[in-house]
Amino acid sequence: MNDHTLKAFDEDINALRALIAEMGGLTEDAIDNAMKALTTRDVALARRVVAGDKRIDELDAQIEKLVVQTIALRAPLADDLREIIAVLKIGGIVERMGDYAKNIAKRVEVFSASARVEPLSLLPSMAQIAREMVKGALDAFVARDPIRAIAVIERDRAVDDFYNAIFRTMVTFMMENPKMISESAHIMFIAKNLERIGDHATNVAEMVYYTSTGEKPAERDKATSVGTFTKE
Amino acid sequence: MNDHTLKAFDEDINALRALIAEMGGLTEDAIDNAMKALTTRDVALARRVVAGDKRIDELDAQIEKLVVQTIALRAPLADDLREIIAVLKIGGIVERMGDYAKNIAKRVEVFSASARVEPLSLLPSMAQIAREMVKGALDAFVARDPIRAIAVIERDRAVDDFYNAIFRTMVTFMMENPKMISESAHIMFIAKNLERIGDHATNVAEMVYYTSTGEKPAERDKATSVGTFTKE
Repeated sequence: MNDHTLKAFDEDINALRALIAEMGGLTEDAIDNAMKALTTRDVALARRVVAGDKRIDELDAQIEKLVVQTIALRAPLADDLREIIAVLKIGGIVERMGDYAKNIAKRVEVFSASARVEPLSLLPSMAQIAREMVKGALDAFVARDPIRAIAVIERDRAVDDFYNAIFRTMVTFMMENPKMISESAHIMFIAKNLERIGDHATNVAEMVYYTSTGEKPAERDKATSVGTFTKE
Repeated sequence: MNDHTLKAFDEDINALRALIAEMGGLTEDAIDNAMKALTTRDVALARRVVAGDKRIDELDAQIEKLVVQTIALRAPLADDLREIIAVLKIGGIVERMGDYAKNIAKRVEVFSASARVEPLSLLPSMAQIAREMVKGALDAFVARDPIRAIAVIERDRAVDDFYNAIFRTMVTFMMENPKMISESAHIMFIAKNLERIGDHATNVAEMVYYTSTGEKPAERDKATSVGTFTKE
């Protein structure tokens, strides 16, 4: 690459990073608002989250287009090419995080008319960790910071523990409140969505760690949690 | 590109397509075997499915490596570049389908010791459709066949209908069998995994349709099902 191409490549990669950061911000908001809609039974807000996912999808499509264009025009070499492929993959992961937030928002209507489901109160803390992991992973990506990436990876277990605790709590709650079984099942699925968001944030953090250090982070148990089986 | 580069590119893209086909075959087997393990309570088989997912992940990593290498060495132009990016994305999607099959297999242990959960019998037909969609989508990809792609897209609704029926059935079953609530919740999650596999196959089929015709398939309702809320 000559100096001109080099500069043009840097501009493209910065534009891509800005698009990822924008997607990340929208996704964090989507998680926040989906949870807010859920806890306040705000169906209108939930619908805005569902509708807003389109913008996240569009940004992902825009990233893909710019990636193809950058590769075609700049013909980046090994490291730059790997970085740009990483951006493409991270865009796809953030898009899926947005889908999980949308899926949470879609479940809000189930709760709007129904009686209080007590264990719902366990979800906001879990959502906060998942959301912070998303922010942490994307901040680490923008700053190419392996230390921040490790901090995200280490929090994944907390989200898994939350998921298992909620699964167990919901099983007991369903036994005691058979009329709330449907709502309770939706809570389980919401917890699962949050667990998946945490897992995806961890994947991003692992990619950041790998691309900035050249090493894989210490093996974590990649097993996604299936929930603990309780015999009661 | 000169003739030599052109031929080399064709060889690379054929190698990539072969890797996708191999991943697809392993994923179909993983779905089959996970369901077989589930219906026969075969924990050993379930563990083999879980262990076997590593190979699917490796193939995805191999595809990514070959994609980067092909782009760097052959500098493919617009259409070829878009095709190779599509291969990268499809590899990522198939890898996730493998994860869903693994997740089903992980739940088998929950059922091994417990009494018969009747609605389990609804799952195999749903799994068969999901598995056929995976095969259909990847066959369409290998043959660049938009007709086969459309056939896959049209079956997505059947999988969604199955999911909703299973969700409703499980809610009723849980009310009548409070001791089976935990196992029943796992069945709901297995149905959800199958629904997601069908959704991912549909995504692949849509990409195949788009790359082979230049047009987007008629809009389907992308809403992933959250399950029907029953008041009983």
